[in-house]
Amino acid sequence: MSPAGSGLFISFEGIDGSGKSTQARLLAEALERSGREVVLTREPGGSPGAEDIRKLVLEGDPDRWSAETEILLFTAARRDHLERTIEPALAAGKVVICDRFADSTRVYQGVSRGDLRGLVDRLHALMIGREPDLTVLIDMDPAQGLSRALGRQGTEERFESFGEGLQQKMRAAFLALAEEFPARFRRIDGNRGIEAVARDVLALAATELA
Amino acid sequence: MSPAGSGLFISFEGIDGSGKSTQARLLAEALERSGREVVLTREPGGSPGAEDIRKLVLEGDPDRWSAETEILLFTAARRDHLERTIEPALAAGKVVICDRFADSTRVYQGVSRGDLRGLVDRLHALMIGREPDLTVLIDMDPAQGLSRALGRQGTEERFESFGEGLQQKMRAAFLALAEEFPARFRRIDGNRGIEAVARDVLALAATELA
Repeated sequence: MSPAGSGLFISFEGIDGSGKSTQARLLAEALERSGREVVLTREPGGSPGAEDIRKLVLEGDPDRWSAETEILLFTAARRDHLERTIEPALAAGKVVICDRFADSTRVYQGVSRGDLRGLVDRLHALMIGREPDLTVLIDMDPAQGLSRALGRQGTEERFESFGEGLQQKMRAAFLALAEEFPARFRRIDGNRGIEAVARDVLALAATELA
Repeated sequence: MSPAGSGLFISFEGIDGSGKSTQARLLAEALERSGREVVLTREPGGSPGAEDIRKLVLEGDPDRWSAETEILLFTAARRDHLERTIEPALAAGKVVICDRFADSTRVYQGVSRGDLRGLVDRLHALMIGREPDLTVLIDMDPAQGLSRALGRQGTEERFESFGEGLQQKMRAAFLALAEEFPARFRRIDGNRGIEAVARDVLALAATELA
């Protein structure tokens, strides 16, 4: 990896339906209006190669891959995304806003598909070794998040199909991660209107960019 | 991984054009004639998921993936191949004959694309942790191997396009691996007729199966 440039790397995390994708986009638009160069991206995916890997992971039978193989594929996609999209943008001084990053793997592959957090961490240390400068956790009531997620259409519904019990577990896992990495995690209450949440998010980013 | 059953796991390694695929097939046929159940497979690939990953790695622009991402994709394919094809066959007492396994990654990704052997080994220890019981190295003069390889047709010619200098380096790397893992590696002189080589290979396998 090239050393980080003068850019800022912000990730958005949260359970399905928490509104993090909307908030990532609104922040990107707000920062661009204020004259910053912004790259809005997402995981899995975010570079041509990583998008191809995303298709391989998310399409087809949910049992197509074991949890371990899935973690390897997500890590391959993340490595490509980091090399081809994130690091070059940061080196050019841009703000990178990423809808999900390694914390989602820690939660979804590390918790929901068996207790593989240790494996996820070792693989991350070996092949990625990069964390966002700021991680915005859009925290919300899973019942509300689930009803939002189920209201969407899409073919990539694996992660939305786990039900409320699992969403409760995911929420707890995200909150635990926020305690584990207090220097970069900021929790935002997502149980409010989009504009109120967006104002809080922008204030956080502004502090980092000041 | 499930514990190894009563089967035998044999890999074939060697530079392009060494005749290892032919020898793997001939050994499979000979063992089947003697009444053994044999699974003849290959890497990258060897299971439906791993074959999909193989396509992703080998097709398209040679610079499509960095060496590190490529290693991750090969490891994902190997994990799937191991879980879905190799381990079940071994557990059922079959002989698994594999055209290339992790040693090819040690040589091709560990040597030819930068000095990444350490990374290959750490990833292997973390995600694969399995070696063949017997590795047959078909050793041959690279000039002869290259002329054979270039005589073949195919769309997956990346590994054949490196030229004789690199093939010399690969040969040396395979011979060094044979010295590093003397318990499982057996070197066979491939600079001879197919039948003479096949006789030696069968004798090696028979010793292991005795």
